Amino acid sequence: MVKGIKKIALLTGGGDCPGLNAVIRAATKTAIIKYGVEVVGFVNGYKGLYNGNIMNLDMDAISGILPRGGTILYTSNKTNLFRMPFKENGETIYKDLSDVGVKNIKEAGIDALIIIGGDGTLTSARDFARKGVKVIGVPKTIDNDLAYTDITFGFDTAVSVATDAIDRLHTTAESHHRIMCLEVMGRYAGWIALEAGLAGGADAILIPEIPYDINKVAAKIQERRAAGKDFSIIVVAEGAKPLSGDMVVQKLIEDSPDPVRLGGIANKVAADLEEIVGLESRATILGHLQRGGTPTSYDRNLSTRYGKAAVDLVFSGKFAEMVTLKGNTMSSASLEEVIGKSKNVDPEGEMVNTAKSIGIAFGD
Amino acid sequence: MVKGIKKIALLTGGGDCPGLNAVIRAATKTAIIKYGVEVVGFVNGYKGLYNGNIMNLDMDAISGILPRGGTILYTSNKTNLFRMPFKENGETIYKDLSDVGVKNIKEAGIDALIIIGGDGTLTSARDFARKGVKVIGVPKTIDNDLAYTDITFGFDTAVSVATDAIDRLHTTAESHHRIMCLEVMGRYAGWIALEAGLAGGADAILIPEIPYDINKVAAKIQERRAAGKDFSIIVVAEGAKPLSGDMVVQKLIEDSPDPVRLGGIANKVAADLEEIVGLESRATILGHLQRGGTPTSYDRNLSTRYGKAAVDLVFSGKFAEMVTLKGNTMSSASLEEVIGKSKNVDPEGEMVNTAKSIGIAFGD
Amino acid sequence: MVKGIKKIALLTGGGDCPGLNAVIRAATKTAIIKYGVEVVGFVNGYKGLYNGNIMNLDMDAISGILPRGGTILYTSNKTNLFRMPFKENGETIYKDLSDVGVKNIKEAGIDALIIIGGDGTLTSARDFARKGVKVIGVPKTIDNDLAYTDITFGFDTAVSVATDAIDRLHTTAESHHRIMCLEVMGRYAGWIALEAGLAGGADAILIPEIPYDINKVAAKIQERRAAGKDFSIIVVAEGAKPLSGDMVVQKLIEDSPDPVRLGGIANKVAADLEEIVGLESRATILGHLQRGGTPTSYDRNLSTRYGKAAVDLVFSGKFAEMVTLKGNTMSSASLEEVIGKSKNVDPEGEMVNTAKSIGIAFGD
Amino acid sequence: MVKGIKKIALLTGGGDCPGLNAVIRAATKTAIIKYGVEVVGFVNGYKGLYNGNIMNLDMDAISGILPRGGTILYTSNKTNLFRMPFKENGETIYKDLSDVGVKNIKEAGIDALIIIGGDGTLTSARDFARKGVKVIGVPKTIDNDLAYTDITFGFDTAVSVATDAIDRLHTTAESHHRIMCLEVMGRYAGWIALEAGLAGGADAILIPEIPYDINKVAAKIQERRAAGKDFSIIVVAEGAKPLSGDMVVQKLIEDSPDPVRLGGIANKVAADLEEIVGLESRATILGHLQRGGTPTSYDRNLSTRYGKAAVDLVFSGKFAEMVTLKGNTMSSASLEEVIGKSKNVDPEGEMVNTAKSIGIAFGD
Repeated sequence: MVKGIKKIALLTGGGDCPGLNAVIRAATKTAIIKYGVEVVGFVNGYKGLYNGNIMNLDMDAISGILPRGGTILYTSNKTNLFRMPFKENGETIYKDLSDVGVKNIKEAGIDALIIIGGDGTLTSARDFARKGVKVIGVPKTIDNDLAYTDITFGFDTAVSVATDAIDRLHTTAESHHRIMCLEVMGRYAGWIALEAGLAGGADAILIPEIPYDINKVAAKIQERRAAGKDFSIIVVAEGAKPLSGDMVVQKLIEDSPDPVRLGGIANKVAADLEEIVGLESRATILGHLQRGGTPTSYDRNLSTRYGKAAVDLVFSGKFAEMVTLKGNTMSSASLEEVIGKSKNVDPEGEMVNTAKSIGIAFGD
Repeated sequence: MVKGIKKIALLTGGGDCPGLNAVIRAATKTAIIKYGVEVVGFVNGYKGLYNGNIMNLDMDAISGILPRGGTILYTSNKTNLFRMPFKENGETIYKDLSDVGVKNIKEAGIDALIIIGGDGTLTSARDFARKGVKVIGVPKTIDNDLAYTDITFGFDTAVSVATDAIDRLHTTAESHHRIMCLEVMGRYAGWIALEAGLAGGADAILIPEIPYDINKVAAKIQERRAAGKDFSIIVVAEGAKPLSGDMVVQKLIEDSPDPVRLGGIANKVAADLEEIVGLESRATILGHLQRGGTPTSYDRNLSTRYGKAAVDLVFSGKFAEMVTLKGNTMSSASLEEVIGKSKNVDPEGEMVNTAKSIGIAFGD
Repeated sequence: MVKGIKKIALLTGGGDCPGLNAVIRAATKTAIIKYGVEVVGFVNGYKGLYNGNIMNLDMDAISGILPRGGTILYTSNKTNLFRMPFKENGETIYKDLSDVGVKNIKEAGIDALIIIGGDGTLTSARDFARKGVKVIGVPKTIDNDLAYTDITFGFDTAVSVATDAIDRLHTTAESHHRIMCLEVMGRYAGWIALEAGLAGGADAILIPEIPYDINKVAAKIQERRAAGKDFSIIVVAEGAKPLSGDMVVQKLIEDSPDPVRLGGIANKVAADLEEIVGLESRATILGHLQRGGTPTSYDRNLSTRYGKAAVDLVFSGKFAEMVTLKGNTMSSASLEEVIGKSKNVDPEGEMVNTAKSIGIAFGD
Repeated sequence: MVKGIKKIALLTGGGDCPGLNAVIRAATKTAIIKYGVEVVGFVNGYKGLYNGNIMNLDMDAISGILPRGGTILYTSNKTNLFRMPFKENGETIYKDLSDVGVKNIKEAGIDALIIIGGDGTLTSARDFARKGVKVIGVPKTIDNDLAYTDITFGFDTAVSVATDAIDRLHTTAESHHRIMCLEVMGRYAGWIALEAGLAGGADAILIPEIPYDINKVAAKIQERRAAGKDFSIIVVAEGAKPLSGDMVVQKLIEDSPDPVRLGGIANKVAADLEEIVGLESRATILGHLQRGGTPTSYDRNLSTRYGKAAVDLVFSGKFAEMVTLKGNTMSSASLEEVIGKSKNVDPEGEMVNTAKSIGIAFGD
């Protein structure tokens, strides 16, 4: 066990994700109970690191937060201390102010920093590690699209919320002989769409990894009608792409700073299917509902394991690492290695294969 | 007890609404068990009445349907036998084909017809009653905006789904210092927005009955910031109206055949608030999720009571009536009287008053 | 509006009930926002009144408590200041120490006291009113068995939890050809059993108001088997009574300080049915799960209305009253009148009648 | 791909488990859609194999069953064709009637049999394999205590239901300063208790693998009181064992044919803690609620993968195997090898270690 660690800080960055509080709680408890050290948190992500906005994390501060969504440390989107925007003479220039962060860490007497966030947040984590800060990363992405770790917390909750939504849409689709399209998160990876579509009994699943031919999706619906089923459920990842031709919507999505607000691809899929098939079609965009609220029991435990393992890593003295889950075992990987690596749905993999075996169309 | 009733038919019309199957189940069971008569259903609403599409409703047919959303009788939207559209020489002309319905009822040996639907569906029910058909109506509107009855089934489920959504948005709003706007159903009446907003702890509720001044909504958010709360939850009924001026979005909503697909007023409210207040704002449109899926225990029981009471009315010999709930008692009102009457949120009533007493803004 | 009220106190007593925090929140907000007065709470029910244990209730104290079960003021069971037990020479003697409570109220500068509790708690409320304390009562009973008010908060949540449980037991009963008995709360009144049984699709409902003949319950199950249904669901109120003869279990229940721990009548019903019918039978006792956790949207709103109405009553100057709900309207009744009055299921009423019309057995 | 397989049969045995229908659905769909063969099911488990009770499994038969608990093939407990009990001269003698099963399989033209069940059911599966029947096993245990597979379906649902229960008990415990003990399934393995306790934020978890000293559990509660927390949550596996001494309850449990009905160890733990600690204590026994109802999205997908993989195994020609999950990959193991092997919680493993690091007591 490494010596000389007396105070650990936590920091959460990026979008909301069920399980953040459970990570904070487990890390805090492990640091206090198992290692007997002090814990603090930077408030509002990297913004707080820049401002020196620190809150104490003792047993009282974390009491009752396990089942709650959000993060008691708050977060900031897109604050990058290595590239802070300033207006000068009407133009935006960028400055590297990471030294301010390093100074704040030192002045607060913090010996190690656990940073919980997605690819953007962890890129800065790596950069602080390069500057000599003792950093451990905890991966956070609702999309489950991170390499080096089997599954990320928040994903099971997102799939669960999306599956509940499909269950609700099912009855309306059936009663009204309709096509119901549900758009779920997944700009670059189709994991949520794939797993929620499978769990909800969707008839077609459209994901970024498998560009779709709308006529093949329509053919699946027609096949169902021929078998006496006048309704269908289509699950669409926000980053789903038509195979070719009409890329208008796709471009809109890629240009948009926030695709959820756009009300995207599912509307197009619904409109196209209504025209081709001749059944009434409706789109629902699940949006932020997938990101908030109480985590599932699965995610609570995964988060707890990540939080505890991060503190263990600190005391093992192995820094610039990110906690990972491999099979049933907690492990770690180098931040230098993991940054920028993503994990996509394998169009030939077991999950897609299972979905196809039970008749789900992907439009390919 | 009226004699000579040997066969009853059921018919469901209009949009999906949790509790329809519970009405069908209770009416069928009551007819069979209490009165010992036969029950059938017209399939696909008035379309089935026109086509003579009839299914048998015995104990097996209704087994297990109590907790399921949708309607096993299916439904059709906007089929009006008194005004059926036909294309002739490129023009749409309308014909009254209600006699076909009357003939189908007679030929199937049906002595009384229970019609479950909203204002449109029940208008036809009244018109069939005028033609001598023995009709009982059961009110169905998720919006709870029907006069003569205290509460309609499906409403509690819609409020419950919307409240769950607010609970989820809350954590994201708080963690990210955001304004989250949730759009719920209610084109003409704000009941769902009002009750879900109250139950979810919203900071402002915008409903059709109280045109809003966006600056007053913004003032509420600023007041919260001054008290250290950097986030707000706004619940918006799809028919919410700005007080004056910018009626563009409002017009879009009124012109739209399906406001859910439009992605409506909440987007405007979010954009306006972001501009005025300077906090990131996001909109979520709950849409069809409010209409489908398993009913709450409350709605299951309300539906069961409506279904049973409708059959009792048949055997009391009082036709052309609609079942109603007054306080804790089932009652009825004349279809002639109820059609076209709606029940709106009273801007001076106890519910709005309660909401204002605890600090919820309505933008007035 | 009454003048001279500057500080209001709240107090919660008796068993847990979803909605208590919503009452506290609404009362506090109404007092601060609408009337501009100060609010405090006695901690741990009457025990806190005796000890002068007071906490401040400002906007921060109540932030975020709406969806949470329990009570932030805590509670005490069975503390009665008018009859406090003391050990003297090995014997228990009782003393009236209510003057201590009156003194604490005065010394804290409290002008009015809102007491939230069941029959026991409100009896003391009435007694303090008799001593000149300005008291308003808010009724709290999960069992919904209170006269003078149509429905009490917490009841809808209890019914909802019990209905979810029946939904789960249903699939096991069906797959295994079993009789599943679920015991729910209701020692003297069968409301939870009746409404959950109705909502869950039970085959028999046993309640205190209708003593049951086990052979008639068995006959219902046999009738189902004859129709090809090899399973049944029985919902049993904890206070359900066999019609005659074997009163052993019943006596146990009445003698027990806590029937939930006993594991009561449902075990007997299951054992008896297994013997008579010859199908495997299992009992589940829902117990405390009905009393805790987040309230339904319905209960959150009912609680909010009660809390706001209680403060309105304070400022109307009408004391020694209890808030009530009549139809859709908040009203009030005199504490002197309501104490000791209960509301039981009417064996001839509409709800039981509806249940019987759809074939549910009550064993009578 | 093996040739000559034209008809596959499915059979479900043993206790209820969420996900059974999803396995049936996926296996049926895969057989029909991917391999183009016929599928049937033996009704009522091995009883149906003995009686030749067969139902057709086509696309209609499995429509809509994905979200439903239970099994549409029904099941039988403890029917063992290799050892069928008969009464002869007042004594029970056992006969091997497995040949009847083999004959029924042949006569129905069944080429391969997929058997879904726990250790008992799969023991017979192995024995039929030994007799030359082409058998594939699918593991089913809610307790997750099976060797050779990382996780079994139904487990995530059980943990989820138990976690919801803990969330509800939490608020009551806190408001009333109580110790709430929740008994969950797990006669020989503590997985449900461990994962639900971790996810629900329990203060102590008692499992069969770690015999507990009640005084150490009490010490944990006292430590919390000293820190100002007057309540505690204890999760108890039904097979939890006191370290020594008082084995009375333990013996009762081991002797009982159905520990759920007994109302077991949690009552003892609650009573003991109340006596030692002096806080009111209550026990709740979750029982059958863990076994029924709709599966979580996680379990739906796991079941679907198992069902599809089982049919793939059939067509790979590798029989007498059981489908397994290793990490994220479907695999298989020999039935000869897996029977009788169980997987217990490792008292020194990562999960227990994590729990202890955040302060959860195990009584050791």
